[in-house]
Amino acid sequence: MAAIATSFSAAAAIAHRRSRPHLQLVARRRAPFSTAASSSSAPSAAAAGFGWTDALRVASDTGLDDESDLSGYFRKVDICNRGMDKKGQFVEFLVEDQVVGYIHKGFTDHLRDFNDVFSIVSGNNCNSSLEHVTLHSSLKTQEDRTIAIGNVIKGLGELIPGIRNELYPVTSSYGTPVYFSLERAAAPYFGIKAYGVHMNGYIEADGEKSLWIGKRSDVKQTYPGMLDHLVAGGLPYGISCKENIIKECEEEAGIPRSMSTNATSVGAISYVDIDGFRYKRDVLFCYDLRLPADFVPNNEDGEVDSFRLIPVRHAGNIIRRTDYFKANCNLVIIDFLFRHGYIKPDYHGYLKLLQSLRSGDCS
Amino acid sequence: MAAIATSFSAAAAIAHRRSRPHLQLVARRRAPFSTAASSSSAPSAAAAGFGWTDALRVASDTGLDDESDLSGYFRKVDICNRGMDKKGQFVEFLVEDQVVGYIHKGFTDHLRDFNDVFSIVSGNNCNSSLEHVTLHSSLKTQEDRTIAIGNVIKGLGELIPGIRNELYPVTSSYGTPVYFSLERAAAPYFGIKAYGVHMNGYIEADGEKSLWIGKRSDVKQTYPGMLDHLVAGGLPYGISCKENIIKECEEEAGIPRSMSTNATSVGAISYVDIDGFRYKRDVLFCYDLRLPADFVPNNEDGEVDSFRLIPVRHAGNIIRRTDYFKANCNLVIIDFLFRHGYIKPDYHGYLKLLQSLRSGDCS
Repeated sequence: MAAIATSFSAAAAIAHRRSRPHLQLVARRRAPFSTAASSSSAPSAAAAGFGWTDALRVASDTGLDDESDLSGYFRKVDICNRGMDKKGQFVEFLVEDQVVGYIHKGFTDHLRDFNDVFSIVSGNNCNSSLEHVTLHSSLKTQEDRTIAIGNVIKGLGELIPGIRNELYPVTSSYGTPVYFSLERAAAPYFGIKAYGVHMNGYIEADGEKSLWIGKRSDVKQTYPGMLDHLVAGGLPYGISCKENIIKECEEEAGIPRSMSTNATSVGAISYVDIDGFRYKRDVLFCYDLRLPADFVPNNEDGEVDSFRLIPVRHAGNIIRRTDYFKANCNLVIIDFLFRHGYIKPDYHGYLKLLQSLRSGDCS
Repeated sequence: MAAIATSFSAAAAIAHRRSRPHLQLVARRRAPFSTAASSSSAPSAAAAGFGWTDALRVASDTGLDDESDLSGYFRKVDICNRGMDKKGQFVEFLVEDQVVGYIHKGFTDHLRDFNDVFSIVSGNNCNSSLEHVTLHSSLKTQEDRTIAIGNVIKGLGELIPGIRNELYPVTSSYGTPVYFSLERAAAPYFGIKAYGVHMNGYIEADGEKSLWIGKRSDVKQTYPGMLDHLVAGGLPYGISCKENIIKECEEEAGIPRSMSTNATSVGAISYVDIDGFRYKRDVLFCYDLRLPADFVPNNEDGEVDSFRLIPVRHAGNIIRRTDYFKANCNLVIIDFLFRHGYIKPDYHGYLKLLQSLRSGDCS
């Protein structure tokens, strides 16, 4: 039987020694890790600046606030949904007359040199500055487009940092025709819809549920050292949501297929976040997996530093009181809190918070 | 241990004898009970025209269609969200400068006689036909307004049928100040937000879940003889969602407080339906309750004819293939199907259907 909030990784012991206690939570809300949402493509070499000791202290402090106060959750939703007032700085990216994305007007200047790949079109109404971006008419097949745009992205060099060598399908909405595939790191620069799978793994013992929470490796390219779900990943081209969750379960937490096949789809969340040239339009398919009480996760791809089993209420406290979680994970756990009755209808703002979990174009 | 799909009520046996088999489901989609959404305030004396035998046959037929085809679910959402093209026939109902509802222009003609209660205000822009409805300035307290409007509703007689003698709080959104209370049957005529609690009661045995489904009494005022959740009810003035669910559990299904206190809030659905003078703006708080496998519900208020335990997949088939369920119950069960993994992300239309479950003003 797994003990609650006990380390199961030698790496965790190192993380403990590395951790720096900080009790002034409110004052620290703007500490370096609070800007993680905007630093994802340029992570610092340092870790997030907190350890499990800090997280567990914050999680279990019963005197800090009232769990019916949802304001901390609203702030986390806001962090994922910034910049809508800057939508006018972007133009539509059309393929076969369908809107597949949005591109910053400033970014289009970098695409003008590649006029055998992109066409930057002026509007024909009275406002001649209106434009949209489309593909050169010679690029008719998925494969041609994928190769041509891939070459442009290489040509842009440091303008698009953090190349992952992982391709995302480009569509107007999920399940509709795929026009081409695009490097994952480039997705927000073209404002394409990006889909992911996020799984809350939990145990239930004596009527109490606890979530397995991961702490990302300090050397991971994006959001190093931050808290994360048990399993999550982008949805690359050519794999179903369920197969992707099974694959990620194996790689990220050592969960065998015999167990992960029971992962249950439970809905989706979405957000839209504008930051500089980047326009993130993400939809995350959410999964729950109830695990045996004696299961212990084991990271196999080096992306996770350590795991802890944390009572659900305590995980909620971490979300409300800190910026320790990778920004979008907050939303998937808030969704879990709704579905499992931890956020209750009579808490002020219940319906507004529930709605806000699909602030993006959930299609 | 409860057997699947077996009757637990003597009344059910009567219902069986009364039932008329009908196998041509597609052709029968426009049978009398398919118009139940619009006949709720004027129910016919006859029951819904089907029995458990019909429902169970439809539910378990494996050859009829493919469960990944969501079109049957979309149709059920549409039935609850009619008439948005007629929104222009309504004017705002304002109290203390807040929009609390919408009233049909034709219905306002009936309110003009009560000019010590309602003020019908012409707009002051170029379109002089623009109006809104508000309360007479002398009605300053909740109590004064409740009494005055209650008297108007009595005065309107048959114009508002099906008086329930149950008061709904009138607000601009859930948890905000209550301006007065309004007879439940009048709610759609004033277009006020109406809140309800709906509970899916289920068992899990051998990894398979089954839902307890009720069949409404043939003499119930609204939706007689139709299928229903185990427990559901409007949210009257002065009671919390949780206390209401506990109360309805006792009255509708004989579930003791020791069990019903485990009912878990899981989210909410909403819809907006315009039909004649009626403008329904409903928000339903959804609950799940996992019941012991040997629990047998027992209706105590005469509103339910009988209950059956139906495998979740079979309940989904009834929703997709028939109009047997009371219209809004379909949506709450579809929400259950999403949260419990029966509707899967790779089914075409997944995100659109998920979004459609909150088509109304979910606030």
